[in-house]
Amino acid sequence: MHATEAPIRATATDVATAAPAGSDPRLVALLERSGAEVLVSADPGTVKLLTGHHGDVETGPSPFLHPPVVVATATDAPLLICAEDEREWAPHVRHLPPAAGVELDPVGRHELAVVAALAELRVLGRRTIVDHVALDTALQHRLERVVPAVGLGALRAVKTPAEQAGVAAAVRLADAGQHAARQASWDGHDELDVWIAARTAIEREAGGRVPLLADVLSGRRTETVSGAPRARRLSDPDPVLVDLAPRLHGFWADSCATWAVGEPTDALRDAHAVCEEALHAALEATRAGALAGDVDAAARAAAARHGAEYAHHTGHGVGFAYHEEPRLVPGATRVLEAGMVVAIEPGCYRRGVGARLEVVAVVGEDGAEVLSGHELALDDPPRSGA
Amino acid sequence: MHATEAPIRATATDVATAAPAGSDPRLVALLERSGAEVLVSADPGTVKLLTGHHGDVETGPSPFLHPPVVVATATDAPLLICAEDEREWAPHVRHLPPAAGVELDPVGRHELAVVAALAELRVLGRRTIVDHVALDTALQHRLERVVPAVGLGALRAVKTPAEQAGVAAAVRLADAGQHAARQASWDGHDELDVWIAARTAIEREAGGRVPLLADVLSGRRTETVSGAPRARRLSDPDPVLVDLAPRLHGFWADSCATWAVGEPTDALRDAHAVCEEALHAALEATRAGALAGDVDAAARAAAARHGAEYAHHTGHGVGFAYHEEPRLVPGATRVLEAGMVVAIEPGCYRRGVGARLEVVAVVGEDGAEVLSGHELALDDPPRSGA
Repeated sequence: MHATEAPIRATATDVATAAPAGSDPRLVALLERSGAEVLVSADPGTVKLLTGHHGDVETGPSPFLHPPVVVATATDAPLLICAEDEREWAPHVRHLPPAAGVELDPVGRHELAVVAALAELRVLGRRTIVDHVALDTALQHRLERVVPAVGLGALRAVKTPAEQAGVAAAVRLADAGQHAARQASWDGHDELDVWIAARTAIEREAGGRVPLLADVLSGRRTETVSGAPRARRLSDPDPVLVDLAPRLHGFWADSCATWAVGEPTDALRDAHAVCEEALHAALEATRAGALAGDVDAAARAAAARHGAEYAHHTGHGVGFAYHEEPRLVPGATRVLEAGMVVAIEPGCYRRGVGARLEVVAVVGEDGAEVLSGHELALDDPPRSGA
Repeated sequence: MHATEAPIRATATDVATAAPAGSDPRLVALLERSGAEVLVSADPGTVKLLTGHHGDVETGPSPFLHPPVVVATATDAPLLICAEDEREWAPHVRHLPPAAGVELDPVGRHELAVVAALAELRVLGRRTIVDHVALDTALQHRLERVVPAVGLGALRAVKTPAEQAGVAAAVRLADAGQHAARQASWDGHDELDVWIAARTAIEREAGGRVPLLADVLSGRRTETVSGAPRARRLSDPDPVLVDLAPRLHGFWADSCATWAVGEPTDALRDAHAVCEEALHAALEATRAGALAGDVDAAARAAAARHGAEYAHHTGHGVGFAYHEEPRLVPGATRVLEAGMVVAIEPGCYRRGVGARLEVVAVVGEDGAEVLSGHELALDDPPRSGA
């Protein structure tokens, strides 16, 4: 097994990869706030932002293959440390390969490559911030003068127009998956049929394999909020809840819709109406200058008018990861800025039925621009088996 | 998007999850070699070994959701720190939840939960070893007296009979995927059709979604060794190379086969014959007491007799990760032990054609027991379109 994620053809919206970002103003601001001169990160989202490189994320860690690492300063083009066979993914970035195919000590080679990158950028021993996940422990022991990052999430929260277009292209995949899932939701099919239809449509649209998170729930399982598909047969009048988060060229999207097999029950109509109203209220509250907590509060207030509530977040930033800043949760004090990309997903889970609606939107000065194009209605269009 | 990997029904071979492993002799030996009293790990394989818990691995990191962490000593039942909604996955293990649904600072809560676990086990401030990947940087700064782990890979290399059965169940999935991929490899289909057929068969067999790595290559792409499927149409006489590594209940398998659409070319017959001979030689050399490098050397010598070579490893341990100890690479001095589970996968890439064959085997005192049951022959059985 030597899998690496292969490049796939661009979808309708062509995707620009990030330019070398040595002078990316977001990075400059982060370093200044942290009082540091260099950022070292193995977080795939941060690597994508600074180098354009997007690597595997579907496999969990391997002791023989380190995730790509970026070493970046405010003034120089970032250096990417990655395996030789990943070199093609970010041709404009200088590489320091950690190890060849059959090296016996890739861990050690990897550390040396990072130290060499620090030396090359003349920041060896200078104040260093490290991204908070995925960085090899042994490597961290090599780094000197590591300081806590201040506001690291802000590095990725506001997206450039090219990055927004990247998310929009991923949203098109989510739209295709939602359409296919709805079409496949008929009496006699099971959750796996729905899931396989959604994933197939997404990979067909992308022209290749893509990372994809999903909740696929039916019947009373919808009330449990989240879960992977099982071999559970659908039958009239089951509710079906499908949440799809695909990644294209390193950019994540997110989406959710809820519908019924056959004629929706009153309980499902009620839950769906709560979601519609809460989603609408949240979108109305989404604009530059608003607090993240205000958007959350608007959605919860709308639900509360129907005596409803939900235990999860109202939404989250999306793009370089499937969840990132800003968090739309109670009391969140982050000020929304134009160019942030958020997924908004209020839900309603009661009386044996769960419903959730989710769209992705770009925060603008005067409101939110919804990128998602999938069907949100409860019973439109009719399903194949209806 | 709130996805967690849902439990799925057991396949033909029922899978026993690990018992609480405070006195697991492998852990005791590791701690003794390292001169430490406690292991802290967020590696999903190590968490699986010590607690039975298997979490998501398909998503990459989220800043709002930490991977499960295990804190283990030689004498106590291990403590698992995980999200509230993952508690059900390892009911026999004591849990310390890091954060509720809409907490604003799950990172801080997560650190505190680990520190609380160390206190509860009375090892706060004692010598601690940390697994080398996936452990939050901020958390590492909280740990005192961290010492380098000695021979951490050995913790997972030798599998118990129950763990071997877990890998065998995952191998059944790989077998099903290989069969479906071969059946779908006909003139007019493309690589995505082959891939979707394989994944669908695997998820149907499992009764749910499973993590799955794959190479799916056809035509001249087979010579590139690895890569994800694309919308490339198959036509006679294309070679098709399919490498599938599924994970079931936290146990990984691996597999590879190579066949042709239509009548194989001479170049493909030649490459396939090299693989068969090298695989046979490697399996012959696989037994307790042999050096890992001996297995590698046997395969390479067989290939060399045909003037062939390959740039990648001959094989690797498999089970708690898709790649783990022992590595079957040139010069590897690790002594094979009964109960190790290895994937052996020699290849041959030349004259515009690549071939690779891979099986999973358990190392025994007197030889190797092959777990894989998928077809390895070049042109048997005939494909649907043949």
